[in-house]
Amino acid sequence: MNKTIYDKRNISMMMDLYELTMANGYMSEKDRNDYVTFDVFYRKNPDIGGYAIFAGLEQVIEYIEQMHFDQDDIDYLRSLHLFSEEFLEYLKTYHFKGDIFAFKEGTIMYPNEPILTVHAPLIDAQLVETAILAEINHQSLIATKASRIVRAARGRAVSDFGARRAHNMDAAVYGARAAYIGGCVGTATVLAGQMFDIPVSGTMAHSWVMYQEDEYTAFKKFAEMYPDDSILLIDTYDVLNSGVPNAIRVAKEVLEPMGKRLKGVRLDSGDLAYLSRKVRQKLDEAGLEDAIIVASNSLDEYTINSIMDQGGCIDSYGVGERLITSKSDPVFGAVYKMAEAEKDGQRIPKIKISETVEKITNPGRKKVYRVYDEEGKAVADLLTKYDEKPIDTSKRYRYVDSKKPWKNMHYEHYSVKELQHQVIKAGKRVTNPVPLKEIRQYVADQIHNEIWDSELRFDNPHEHYLDMSPSYYEMKMDLLYKSQKNNEEED
Amino acid sequence: MNKTIYDKRNISMMMDLYELTMANGYMSEKDRNDYVTFDVFYRKNPDIGGYAIFAGLEQVIEYIEQMHFDQDDIDYLRSLHLFSEEFLEYLKTYHFKGDIFAFKEGTIMYPNEPILTVHAPLIDAQLVETAILAEINHQSLIATKASRIVRAARGRAVSDFGARRAHNMDAAVYGARAAYIGGCVGTATVLAGQMFDIPVSGTMAHSWVMYQEDEYTAFKKFAEMYPDDSILLIDTYDVLNSGVPNAIRVAKEVLEPMGKRLKGVRLDSGDLAYLSRKVRQKLDEAGLEDAIIVASNSLDEYTINSIMDQGGCIDSYGVGERLITSKSDPVFGAVYKMAEAEKDGQRIPKIKISETVEKITNPGRKKVYRVYDEEGKAVADLLTKYDEKPIDTSKRYRYVDSKKPWKNMHYEHYSVKELQHQVIKAGKRVTNPVPLKEIRQYVADQIHNEIWDSELRFDNPHEHYLDMSPSYYEMKMDLLYKSQKNNEEED
Repeated sequence: MNKTIYDKRNISMMMDLYELTMANGYMSEKDRNDYVTFDVFYRKNPDIGGYAIFAGLEQVIEYIEQMHFDQDDIDYLRSLHLFSEEFLEYLKTYHFKGDIFAFKEGTIMYPNEPILTVHAPLIDAQLVETAILAEINHQSLIATKASRIVRAARGRAVSDFGARRAHNMDAAVYGARAAYIGGCVGTATVLAGQMFDIPVSGTMAHSWVMYQEDEYTAFKKFAEMYPDDSILLIDTYDVLNSGVPNAIRVAKEVLEPMGKRLKGVRLDSGDLAYLSRKVRQKLDEAGLEDAIIVASNSLDEYTINSIMDQGGCIDSYGVGERLITSKSDPVFGAVYKMAEAEKDGQRIPKIKISETVEKITNPGRKKVYRVYDEEGKAVADLLTKYDEKPIDTSKRYRYVDSKKPWKNMHYEHYSVKELQHQVIKAGKRVTNPVPLKEIRQYVADQIHNEIWDSELRFDNPHEHYLDMSPSYYEMKMDLLYKSQKNNEEED
Repeated sequence: MNKTIYDKRNISMMMDLYELTMANGYMSEKDRNDYVTFDVFYRKNPDIGGYAIFAGLEQVIEYIEQMHFDQDDIDYLRSLHLFSEEFLEYLKTYHFKGDIFAFKEGTIMYPNEPILTVHAPLIDAQLVETAILAEINHQSLIATKASRIVRAARGRAVSDFGARRAHNMDAAVYGARAAYIGGCVGTATVLAGQMFDIPVSGTMAHSWVMYQEDEYTAFKKFAEMYPDDSILLIDTYDVLNSGVPNAIRVAKEVLEPMGKRLKGVRLDSGDLAYLSRKVRQKLDEAGLEDAIIVASNSLDEYTINSIMDQGGCIDSYGVGERLITSKSDPVFGAVYKMAEAEKDGQRIPKIKISETVEKITNPGRKKVYRVYDEEGKAVADLLTKYDEKPIDTSKRYRYVDSKKPWKNMHYEHYSVKELQHQVIKAGKRVTNPVPLKEIRQYVADQIHNEIWDSELRFDNPHEHYLDMSPSYYEMKMDLLYKSQKNNEEED
């Protein structure tokens, strides 16, 4: 099999080598069939924002289900002279045997809570790390960025135009998927439209205008071809002196005799706030109040906010490179950390200590709840131990604010929702794929109904609370004190 | 065919919708079989650097050769109600029929010169735009970033550790390829190693240490398993009080009795400059002068430069998110602009005017030369018209500095090399794939031998000259004056 061609590949091997060297090492552990628990979580929201959007889960499920090693994969691994024949033999028939629990795709998420949890035999849990992180990191990054841009546009449509600046083909296609989840109305990327049933849009490039003998002819031909979809690119030569007059002429001379209206114009350069106001005025004067103005060119939430503040008359934004790369913050830093190991029927919580307090992990297998007030607003998220008894919301609930553990804190008049659901059981999916439009609607519903405005602010947003049940907090503190004691003994 | 699964996909449809709406429009042009010329070029080097590296060509060639539309692609396009049946029928048997010329992969490149040129019938030239740009933009971005990081490391090894933070699977795999071209010694990404024969490396994660009963046991088991490849991760609990002493103990108690040496240790957190000096001292005191120190954790050219300046004792850098996303400048902005159209046997140069002077294109089909002085240093690049007579380097050559066209400028005692070569002829590749190691060596040779140090500076580098032949300059000016005249007539 030629692995260098895009349409034939097995991405099971998309993993860091150390997953395999460790797995090979675990082969000789007598307890290698014992289960361990790894949590996926991240430490800070992109762009110093107040929230992020969990995306990419469907592709994680696909990856897990299809994971396998072909003979040429085995041959390649053998050639590295690192692995035992026993391990290579094991990989030949390998399939993932564990369980996966995750937030519903599209859930608003916050730092330091387990958005996805793998509960699996040691080798299985280790092998899936890299692909899970790459998928969740990428799609969550772009969904979150899209959500920010869509909010900046205050109701105007935002479309993804980013394919050409994406970090290769997957980034364009899965980025378009994530952008749609985050609130974009569509994409220009045909393959993404086809794969995920995302609305596609796109009209003409400068080359269309440059190829024809003049701008008017270019517009005329396009309007004749697409009378219902005539968005004309007006900045090839001179927006106000050539582009707009030619577009108006086509509206009057070509479209109106056909009983059609000019759908709109597109600006791709210049001072968009200024030009769009001038263009709007000229279109209105010509009786084309219904023609929309589309704008593109290095847009993101910051430039769109500024254009809106300046009274720019833009009805639809085409957002490219700054969305598809999340240019102002292109790394989503979710990590994959061991939370628990089971030995001889005992569940042993694991903690990663660090000099940097923010890098200390939340140990143990756990449950995550979102806590709502009487108006349905999400006031906090709550970590409990996995085996605590269900929360009785008819009673007030004592919790620990882990940043101010000395305070006596309670929820009253509240409801809760558990955020993780099982998606993989013994290696097989146990949930149907969720239609993308449903995921997108779920994001919009949370943003409009559940999230405090103070978390949606672009500047200095409110930091969502991550509370702990008293017994969870006690377990974590216990581990920290023990680790300190061990260190002192070693000193 | 289920297109949502990674190992079965046809990326021919990875294009912006407007490529197809324009192509559909061109179907009815009587001269649609006439050839046009599009140039790929970019306007500024990433990270305000002095150069960039051309990468991704091999994947462009693969894309062009495999491009086709399956029946389900046609069905999807029909469902959009935008395209004529004639056009959909045409796509069924579509294959690219044009020619492509490009810089050799790995060539050092500079702004505003055509790094790749498509000479093809109008429809063909339009359909390939998005994929060519996505591929060249992504791989050139990462190759250039890698080159900067490798230079900052001043001879120490740099490896790609970025898969988990890449923008999805392709970005990890093709990013690893580009990073290797740019000078990395290897990658942690197994699939990239397998596909491109890149050296792979990787040892253990924190989870290996956390899973075992204690750090010493974790190190011991690993050293027994990989006695020749024992790089121990020493920062899970406490680098200086636990990690280093345990590593030394394993070197003495486990490895030395086997006749083996400790290969090294890895630091993944904390103050790397400080810790690496301390670790070096402790290893040396224990007689482990040959054990290397590997460091990872949010590294790039800026942090590595700083560590080196502080006397950090790091032998090998594992670079992740800031390389694989080119975090400090994650967009490579190559564009695809029409340079010429042929009508009735006439070649008509095309220019894109813009209010922003930097956005005015270089019109016409052209040749690009690199000009060398007697010592083999590249002093400038030169654009000429496509049909100018070959440069006779035995004579001095008059050129135009387009920023100071009034000056009387000449090359003397020089040699030239034409930079573009044909890679696709009538839709078929005419060059063999170049082994990746050769591309990597070609990059290193240019950096060490051809490029001025002043262009390699991180701060305020010298801007490489892009000169023009007198007749090329005259043609461009002529078009600009004409366009101005046309505008005035319209006013």
